[in-house]
Amino acid sequence: MPTHHEDDESPALYESLTDSVRRLLDVTIRSQGDPATVASAQAKIDAAVAELSGALIPGSFGVQQDRDGNPRAWGNAVIGLRNALAPPLVLHHEADGSVWAEVVLGAAYEGPPGHVHGGICALLLDHVLGATAHKPGRPAVTGTLTLRYDLGTRLGQLRAEARVDRVEGAKTYAVGQLSTPDGVTVRAEGVFIHPRTTAK
Amino acid sequence: MPTHHEDDESPALYESLTDSVRRLLDVTIRSQGDPATVASAQAKIDAAVAELSGALIPGSFGVQQDRDGNPRAWGNAVIGLRNALAPPLVLHHEADGSVWAEVVLGAAYEGPPGHVHGGICALLLDHVLGATAHKPGRPAVTGTLTLRYDLGTRLGQLRAEARVDRVEGAKTYAVGQLSTPDGVTVRAEGVFIHPRTTAK
Repeated sequence: MPTHHEDDESPALYESLTDSVRRLLDVTIRSQGDPATVASAQAKIDAAVAELSGALIPGSFGVQQDRDGNPRAWGNAVIGLRNALAPPLVLHHEADGSVWAEVVLGAAYEGPPGHVHGGICALLLDHVLGATAHKPGRPAVTGTLTLRYDLGTRLGQLRAEARVDRVEGAKTYAVGQLSTPDGVTVRAEGVFIHPRTTAK
Repeated sequence: MPTHHEDDESPALYESLTDSVRRLLDVTIRSQGDPATVASAQAKIDAAVAELSGALIPGSFGVQQDRDGNPRAWGNAVIGLRNALAPPLVLHHEADGSVWAEVVLGAAYEGPPGHVHGGICALLLDHVLGATAHKPGRPAVTGTLTLRYDLGTRLGQLRAEARVDRVEGAKTYAVGQLSTPDGVTVRAEGVFIHPRTTAK
């Protein structure tokens, strides 16, 4: 079996597949199906796994490049378009260096009933704050991250945003917040570092 | 269609289904299948979604109770056995109040190539530190969380652990860390609060 095809390059192909897996993830949590229904669904899922496993990238997706040399972080836990764990967040970079994203979070992101898990809030803020420090081909990794939880973050529509407070050498100091229709729910500050090698 | 069955009470039924969804999530990231293979797999996934959607819990899973009144956080983003986003973490509570978990993280948790996303480290530590403050029927929510990243956390085997530093009224001060075969990778401290109502 060939391990690579021209059409593998198409984001839409995998984006559509991954959206289906996201829906599956949601209904796997919320289904009230009887055992026969669950068994039937599971058989279909296992068959899909077998089909997709014919040829696999070893280990993890990493960061690959498209034909134009642009990085593709399709496996990333926050922004990866092939990662059904990722909402995925679509980052908007403003001219002033700030970064924001709006997203709707459902049942898969729950901690306290009806609310986003505090650690998921941290996951999103880590990524959005870190994104203020990213340069093409020169990613930044988290040095420190501090989160203050002011309100519970309800499941549903939310906005994550961050800006650079200051840059000192390889360190970017970023601040940001999560908000919902209830207001600002979590505030964050972090230091993000450009390592000498990305394999840090 | 009935919305509830005696056999719905069985953790094993949904645990097995969710394990299949976890495998699917992984191969969706790593597959090198051609467009026909992807389309065929997607059709099976969509059929499984339709089957499982016959009767759904509205909104999110929340925390339900089994027949003995024990809480079931099956939808939880870190420990939920019906949540394919969750590894899931299996928490061990020691007599001295410390909490630990060991887990293997694969492609779905990636940030920097070959490494766990910094925000996923935060997600796991938030939960494990918070678990030191949980009492039956009296969950704690995160007040503040501070993370220090000492080393990149490689994908693979890792251990998360936490202990109570001190308790002051409704506040539990917890400390903890993540480690891999490389050593301690991330250190955390946090304040966790028992809200007057869980709907905070």
